[in-house]
Amino acid sequence: MKIIIVGAGGAVGKPAFDELSRRHEVIAVGRSSGDIQADIEDVESIRAMYAATGQVDAVVSAVGHGHFGPVEGMTGELFMKGINHKLLPQVNLVLEGIAYMRDGGSFTLTSGVLNRDPIRGGASAAAANGALDGFVLGAAVDMPRGIRINSVSPEVLEVSRERYDGFFRGHYHVSNEAVALAYSKAVEGCQTGQVYTVDFG
Amino acid sequence: MKIIIVGAGGAVGKPAFDELSRRHEVIAVGRSSGDIQADIEDVESIRAMYAATGQVDAVVSAVGHGHFGPVEGMTGELFMKGINHKLLPQVNLVLEGIAYMRDGGSFTLTSGVLNRDPIRGGASAAAANGALDGFVLGAAVDMPRGIRINSVSPEVLEVSRERYDGFFRGHYHVSNEAVALAYSKAVEGCQTGQVYTVDFG
Repeated sequence: MKIIIVGAGGAVGKPAFDELSRRHEVIAVGRSSGDIQADIEDVESIRAMYAATGQVDAVVSAVGHGHFGPVEGMTGELFMKGINHKLLPQVNLVLEGIAYMRDGGSFTLTSGVLNRDPIRGGASAAAANGALDGFVLGAAVDMPRGIRINSVSPEVLEVSRERYDGFFRGHYHVSNEAVALAYSKAVEGCQTGQVYTVDFG
Repeated sequence: MKIIIVGAGGAVGKPAFDELSRRHEVIAVGRSSGDIQADIEDVESIRAMYAATGQVDAVVSAVGHGHFGPVEGMTGELFMKGINHKLLPQVNLVLEGIAYMRDGGSFTLTSGVLNRDPIRGGASAAAANGALDGFVLGAAVDMPRGIRINSVSPEVLEVSRERYDGFFRGHYHVSNEAVALAYSKAVEGCQTGQVYTVDFG
């Protein structure tokens, strides 16, 4: 398979890259690294990326960030960061990518744990995650030509323990191997409209 | 209790209004009807509404609409209709309303069935619903002064059968009574961070 992985150099994208590149032709995409540079917050950049790759069998997105802070004092603009930096870019990757997706191919988006196991200050991220999980369920029944779409929703990764020190007390930190399995199932499996949670392992 | 119901004249808001106004002081809010006129897509209009009501014990939102259409050919702009017309206005009602909410009061938002039981063309709405359900879970752990927040996620209402004729084949159509119970539990109950689904009854 020919597979695009956006964010292949990131904490979540790297396990997906390491797993899938063992068996497939993987095109790593990053803002400033990888085989192709693209900023998926810019639709034109997404279009240029697809024009460069041509037809593919799978697209994996492992990017996005949001706003962390309490709801008391949060503005609508701060709330929308999760939508604008995590939800919409990944959705646009799908909307713009359908024309480049081969029959029976797949899209895999990345949400996260906060809309099932919340932490303080995580409401904006929880909304973005819920939207992503809802989108894949809704879009799955719409997809033409047998194209599948799923999301991977991982707990905090072991490799990100220091980065998020103290914010996720009591949360299990999952291994790269566990995360890689979810992306493998999404890309190399047969299901659609699924949210693959990675809470342990 | 003093309760604001935004969209009190709508299909979903009316059952909430009918139920809660029997026992409480309810302020009906609509864009062009009700006790107070407000357009919650405009933050300034939300602020004017709260300035007019003063402190309240509960806010119920039963408004919002989105885009319906297949993902193939959908643009990012069309996708965002669900975010801009259903998600963000309800979130802003919360963010702006915390200062007006009495200790132990509650916010109740309205999502919908499409992020658990999809129909064709419903991906944008499914994303908005998922975001709303995620937001209430995330925001619940952040709320100051014992303030609660929940969502009601109803199936298509019996009263809306003609309006959505053909789009929801096989879906149960729920009664006003069943919908009213969910809003009653959200406002008059004790739980927080819950999605009250109304799939039957």
